[in-house]
Amino acid sequence: MKFKRFDSITIVGVGLLGGSLGLAVKANDPDARIVGVGHRQISLDKALEIGAVDLATCDAAEGVHDADLVVLCTPVGLFESMLRRIAPALKRHAVVTDVGSTKVSVVRLAERILGPKRPFVGSHPIAGSEQRGVGFARADLFVGKTCILTPTARTRPALLRRVAGFWQDVGMRTVELSPGKHDRTLANVSHLPHAVASLLVNVQNAAELDMAGTGFIDATRIAGGDPVMWRDICLDNRKALLGATEAMQEQLDAFNDLLREADGPGLQRLFTRAQKRRADMLERRLRQRRVEG
Amino acid sequence: MKFKRFDSITIVGVGLLGGSLGLAVKANDPDARIVGVGHRQISLDKALEIGAVDLATCDAAEGVHDADLVVLCTPVGLFESMLRRIAPALKRHAVVTDVGSTKVSVVRLAERILGPKRPFVGSHPIAGSEQRGVGFARADLFVGKTCILTPTARTRPALLRRVAGFWQDVGMRTVELSPGKHDRTLANVSHLPHAVASLLVNVQNAAELDMAGTGFIDATRIAGGDPVMWRDICLDNRKALLGATEAMQEQLDAFNDLLREADGPGLQRLFTRAQKRRADMLERRLRQRRVEG
Repeated sequence: MKFKRFDSITIVGVGLLGGSLGLAVKANDPDARIVGVGHRQISLDKALEIGAVDLATCDAAEGVHDADLVVLCTPVGLFESMLRRIAPALKRHAVVTDVGSTKVSVVRLAERILGPKRPFVGSHPIAGSEQRGVGFARADLFVGKTCILTPTARTRPALLRRVAGFWQDVGMRTVELSPGKHDRTLANVSHLPHAVASLLVNVQNAAELDMAGTGFIDATRIAGGDPVMWRDICLDNRKALLGATEAMQEQLDAFNDLLREADGPGLQRLFTRAQKRRADMLERRLRQRRVEG
Repeated sequence: MKFKRFDSITIVGVGLLGGSLGLAVKANDPDARIVGVGHRQISLDKALEIGAVDLATCDAAEGVHDADLVVLCTPVGLFESMLRRIAPALKRHAVVTDVGSTKVSVVRLAERILGPKRPFVGSHPIAGSEQRGVGFARADLFVGKTCILTPTARTRPALLRRVAGFWQDVGMRTVELSPGKHDRTLANVSHLPHAVASLLVNVQNAAELDMAGTGFIDATRIAGGDPVMWRDICLDNRKALLGATEAMQEQLDAFNDLLREADGPGLQRLFTRAQKRRADMLERRLRQRRVEG
């Protein structure tokens, strides 16, 4: 039966992701018991109002003491203090996971603070948006998207399967990567595009921005994301991100060489390659959904 | 009365833009007489079928001989041969304009081939998409978007107003820039983002692409555009585009410095600036539409 993998779930941080997670769980299992932990009463009230949580508290220790699964949904920068607060309050066999965008530092931190007796499985549901707050929460935020799980040598396979099952129950495809591989992958496919989108805005003057078409608006939508969250992601993953930005600079250098040499066939090959690889990616997704659906 | 600025309009090239233009004119004035010129019978048949044109021909000279306004909607690379074919067939006082994405070379070419007696006004309706072909044509493609007109010393003000009025009648805001200023602006706000989106795809391997979220999909949507068209745009505007890509490289260098120094406040400022400038741009647009609407 769905969601019976964990009888009681505590969501720490009821913003867009935490609120949506509560709605997603409740949509599939109205009997699920969900506790929300937050530091702003207004967010907790809203989460209660929309039915994302059944109980809400500002006291993290109180919020987790009966939980079978705790999902950390606060900004990553708050994980350390939150883990220290909840660690002593967790009941035996409780499982902790998270939704953080970086994994090497998060998994290391969580395993260190929680110790070997309190299991942690790193999760990254790739399902955010540039929107913030529980006001944007929706039950289908995770449907059809990918959740990367980042087990370590310490992670028991049965536990990994339970946490994977939790994400699958809210509609996600799950994939396993090591924390390091996760961070290098996300540096390329998420953190680099975010940085590039922001730089694409900053390189324009206002008159140029006013001439922008829908292509530019879409290409830079992610630059609307929370600056503090993105600062923390960049700092946390800066080594992998530097690798990604340097690879991007090499791509730009090669593009400039083609421009300088007015190399028409070379430019056409470059654009054709991008068009085809992107179309292939979308096609693989569609195929996968057909198989899974 | 709308569209009576030009009694008979010939659209040369009935793809996404040409077909949409026909539909937009007809939607506002069912009595408008529109001739479509194309080189593929299947596109012409489709344009007739959806009502984008009233008459269709593969013979450009025949197609324009009765036109008061001729709009070149083929790829820019075909403008020279097309202008040579239509120039002798144009009737007295016929006006020629276009929808090309670059303007310095187009305006120079058109003024040279058409000569001082056959007026040309460069237009760039910023309303394309990565889609191609008359099958994607829609009557509202131009609504609420910007058309840049690029007059020269030779352009008579009354004529400029007539052509501006034509674009306004299909729902566009019109702006005037010199051809050079247009090309520098578009290099920054359109051609650079297209190149960057393509490079963002090419820098990933397939496994990384399969982890991409909706942010990446949106950020690279423009990389789905026609490689031949974008090759031609880059070649045609390569000097201005080189300036834009070099400015982007400087932005990336500065970003990398912030990363290497783990400069949190600097990264936050950079992301905040991008977020705010993009939000301001969208706000200016909304305000403008409220004023105009």
